[in-house]
Amino acid sequence: MRLRRGPDRAAYASRDVLAVLDAGIIAHVGVVTPEGPVVIPMAYGRDDEHLYLHGAVGNAALRAAVDHDICVTITIVDGLIFARTPFHNSMRYRSVVVRGVARRIRDEAEHIRALRLVTDHVAPNWDTSRPPSVGDVRATMAVAIPLTESSAKLRPGGPADEPDDLVGPYWGGTVPLTTVYGPLEPSPDLAAGIAAPVAIAALTGAPVHPAHPAG
Amino acid sequence: MRLRRGPDRAAYASRDVLAVLDAGIIAHVGVVTPEGPVVIPMAYGRDDEHLYLHGAVGNAALRAAVDHDICVTITIVDGLIFARTPFHNSMRYRSVVVRGVARRIRDEAEHIRALRLVTDHVAPNWDTSRPPSVGDVRATMAVAIPLTESSAKLRPGGPADEPDDLVGPYWGGTVPLTTVYGPLEPSPDLAAGIAAPVAIAALTGAPVHPAHPAG
Repeated sequence: MRLRRGPDRAAYASRDVLAVLDAGIIAHVGVVTPEGPVVIPMAYGRDDEHLYLHGAVGNAALRAAVDHDICVTITIVDGLIFARTPFHNSMRYRSVVVRGVARRIRDEAEHIRALRLVTDHVAPNWDTSRPPSVGDVRATMAVAIPLTESSAKLRPGGPADEPDDLVGPYWGGTVPLTTVYGPLEPSPDLAAGIAAPVAIAALTGAPVHPAHPAG
Repeated sequence: MRLRRGPDRAAYASRDVLAVLDAGIIAHVGVVTPEGPVVIPMAYGRDDEHLYLHGAVGNAALRAAVDHDICVTITIVDGLIFARTPFHNSMRYRSVVVRGVARRIRDEAEHIRALRLVTDHVAPNWDTSRPPSVGDVRATMAVAIPLTESSAKLRPGGPADEPDDLVGPYWGGTVPLTTVYGPLEPSPDLAAGIAAPVAIAALTGAPVHPAHPAG
């Protein structure tokens, strides 16, 4: 069932994989425990070679991930596809599946870099926040999963009905989903006179999942 | 790591679990394969006792699920939470985790009912579509997972910063996400004069993830 990439493929992720990772905001991380699989939503970051996850050092899912095969899936739902018959209903979506062994990052510089990549994934805010303390960094663990076994699935368009159904009386089409960032909600305990960083303020009104570059 | 419910709890899912299942549209299904875990996005449906998934009878993930422990996670991201320090960044979200053994539904009436529950999860359209043929039904498999081991996690609100950070110069707050259904996109091969069913037309402008009843 694992999708192995042939020797003719590039060493790392395809452009589709990187584009979907950039457009997504949440990962679903699957790990195996003695009681069966667990799937947990997590923030993530990436560079061209790895996907990064982070969490508290006591995070049970991350601890179960280290040195084991895991699966990280990112899905963006772009619409509901209603076919002439429920059998052909579908969704307009983009997804990426990354499988690989999670490696706990021990090197301090690499650790900080991974934390920054996760922090800055949606909007750069590391440099406009209070820098992490030594204690913050020690309390956090980060893992890297290589993008060598990653695949993207793009399902654009609308219904794919059977020819016989096109002459029937049934409607077919797509209802797109639009996700945008709303107005900032400053924390009730925010001191007067502190403005939001430009990168965060710029989110308002922006699409959460920018369209795929290929259209 | 499995969350077992005590004997004092109701037999099935909590009201929070049901509310999040109703507000969500996509599940991430984790199954174990010989090569490690796989997490696949799928549509889903529910009644008060079970979560239902469906797919082609050849669907590798569903086949790996039958008679095994699986995990189904539904997540709704309601906002990005920017704390004064990245260490406390978070998301405003609602999620449900369901763990249990997937049972393949063999009884025909139960099978049809499960397919209808998945089809009608977001908007009822089973009754306004071409009824499934015998072949359609035979080509589809459905599985049920009991909701007895389900848990909801609600993370509303904004940043939870440390007191020392509140006097610093850093912004803290939330950027909400709003997801709405856009205008219908009729299929290019739609015959003239066929209007969308009322339940589908009514989606346009509606929130994709209705707010949690508890606020």
